[in-house]
Amino acid sequence: MKTRVGIAGYGNLGRGVELAIRQNPDMELIGIFTRRDPASVKTLTGAPAYRIEDAETMKDQIDVMILCGGSATDLPQQGPQLAKNFHTIDSFDTHAKIPEYFAAMDKVCKEQKHISIISVGWDPGLFSLNRLYAESVLSNGKTYTFWGKGVSQGHSDAIRRVKGVKNAIQYTVPVEQAIEAVRNCENPELTTRQKHLRECYVVAEEGADLAQIENDIKTMPNYFSDYDTTVHFISEEELKRDHASMPHGGFVIRSGKTGLQEETNQVIEFSLKLESNPEFTASVLVAYARAAHCMAQEGMCGAKSVFDVAPAYLSAKSGEELRKELL
Amino acid sequence: MKTRVGIAGYGNLGRGVELAIRQNPDMELIGIFTRRDPASVKTLTGAPAYRIEDAETMKDQIDVMILCGGSATDLPQQGPQLAKNFHTIDSFDTHAKIPEYFAAMDKVCKEQKHISIISVGWDPGLFSLNRLYAESVLSNGKTYTFWGKGVSQGHSDAIRRVKGVKNAIQYTVPVEQAIEAVRNCENPELTTRQKHLRECYVVAEEGADLAQIENDIKTMPNYFSDYDTTVHFISEEELKRDHASMPHGGFVIRSGKTGLQEETNQVIEFSLKLESNPEFTASVLVAYARAAHCMAQEGMCGAKSVFDVAPAYLSAKSGEELRKELL
Repeated sequence: MKTRVGIAGYGNLGRGVELAIRQNPDMELIGIFTRRDPASVKTLTGAPAYRIEDAETMKDQIDVMILCGGSATDLPQQGPQLAKNFHTIDSFDTHAKIPEYFAAMDKVCKEQKHISIISVGWDPGLFSLNRLYAESVLSNGKTYTFWGKGVSQGHSDAIRRVKGVKNAIQYTVPVEQAIEAVRNCENPELTTRQKHLRECYVVAEEGADLAQIENDIKTMPNYFSDYDTTVHFISEEELKRDHASMPHGGFVIRSGKTGLQEETNQVIEFSLKLESNPEFTASVLVAYARAAHCMAQEGMCGAKSVFDVAPAYLSAKSGEELRKELL
Repeated sequence: MKTRVGIAGYGNLGRGVELAIRQNPDMELIGIFTRRDPASVKTLTGAPAYRIEDAETMKDQIDVMILCGGSATDLPQQGPQLAKNFHTIDSFDTHAKIPEYFAAMDKVCKEQKHISIISVGWDPGLFSLNRLYAESVLSNGKTYTFWGKGVSQGHSDAIRRVKGVKNAIQYTVPVEQAIEAVRNCENPELTTRQKHLRECYVVAEEGADLAQIENDIKTMPNYFSDYDTTVHFISEEELKRDHASMPHGGFVIRSGKTGLQEETNQVIEFSLKLESNPEFTASVLVAYARAAHCMAQEGMCGAKSVFDVAPAYLSAKSGEELRKELL
């Protein structure tokens, strides 16, 4: 029996989920649910589009709803709403609000005997898992997370709000020397500036003051002032040609000590090199949709995070197959 | 309440577990259980030693028994025996016999309502987990495992059986170009020879025929004949001075494709760089002992592998703390 999936929200992430489902023969896409006029939505694979308000009427046809809205405004409202009728997966990533969101989802889920796995993706998600495994194994140690090289949507948006800027893309770049120091078990204390660089590609409006734009970006508090930031002015054509993809990635590294005098160095490293951030995040969501369906069939309910999901649930393979092929 | 641990078997791994327990304030070592005369065993931390036959009489004082015997002969006999009286953790790693061992442990565990997590460590163990996560997320892809640089006990033993050899250490070394090809998403088909090199450090007996020894090693079927093998003759002093530690490590890398035409490259990589293989393996065992204790308290029973353990069980932290600090 296939896992029948619905997608709520059809931006980059929703499209990624649509494509990821196609790669998993045990999963089936029932439809896209959107706030737009469904007739205006052309899906990548020809999947049918429905009004999000009509989702409830299809609840018997859908095993898991994957929520592909944004964390700022969509998910806090849609999450608890959709969890009333569906098991759900989402990639909620407003870190400070996770406790509140988890509590809201948990309440609805327990009332309705649904399961919702929140904050799924790569960070939060696979990176979180690796922080947990590494810390649990190496009690005496220190974990570092580096992001990039990759596009930060939030920082790109911040640049676009600068006066005289027409368009922009910002790359977060991890500092290679810092990563090497961590790998070499030097346990460095790293400032914000020492961990990441910020590279900005900016399309200026005609006649704009470039020096002023560069200064406005570099001195912007929170976003840029604590970093070594470089600004490159390019044409709209160059931006479209060279900066249209959404690569990302990063590193979770823990170095720890074991032994009689805690003198033995041990290093655990996890890294991702992604040509498309939304397509990869979508692939993680789909694996957790499989898990949610399976856990729900076993009678589990409530809000969960990746920490609560036994790895075997992510795979379509049986326990015997997993032990034979992967253990 | 602390998790009270017993250690069955006191070799390198058992000593590693003894030290790892000390690094976890929520764990308590009750005693070492050995086939030797306990009076002859001097433990690293002063933990008491008992006869393995007396373990049963202490079953009410021990929450989890960590089995530190070998996979060839110790565990197949000790595992089912000790699982009658204890929740257990072991690092059983004879891959072909895992189904048989799992079945034997599962039978005893279900009869006694015990939990036994088998094949815990880094491979099998953390590497297995990463193979599972990576394959579940990137359905269309290929996973590669490289080992080393590290000491292979089996290969070192094989050299020691060669005529004229007094002592030896063998390092398994991954081929850097092969790793790079995998990271670059070339999906290479790699032969045994293309994945790993074998470096041997050999102490010859006085007057031995060195050319003959080198030839005997390099042509040894299964162990060396399929590899590029180098043989270095060194003195017993050099062996003791330069090759006494037991480093190891390796890489699990999956590259996969996503997207409309499956044209987008995505790479997931996990790696370990360990100065002491047994101390690290022991640290993994101790984290899973915590999990076993917790899962048993929730009423779970039966044989398990790392695939069946939700990550949160490995940590002493609460769900709230994990979501706040690590998600």
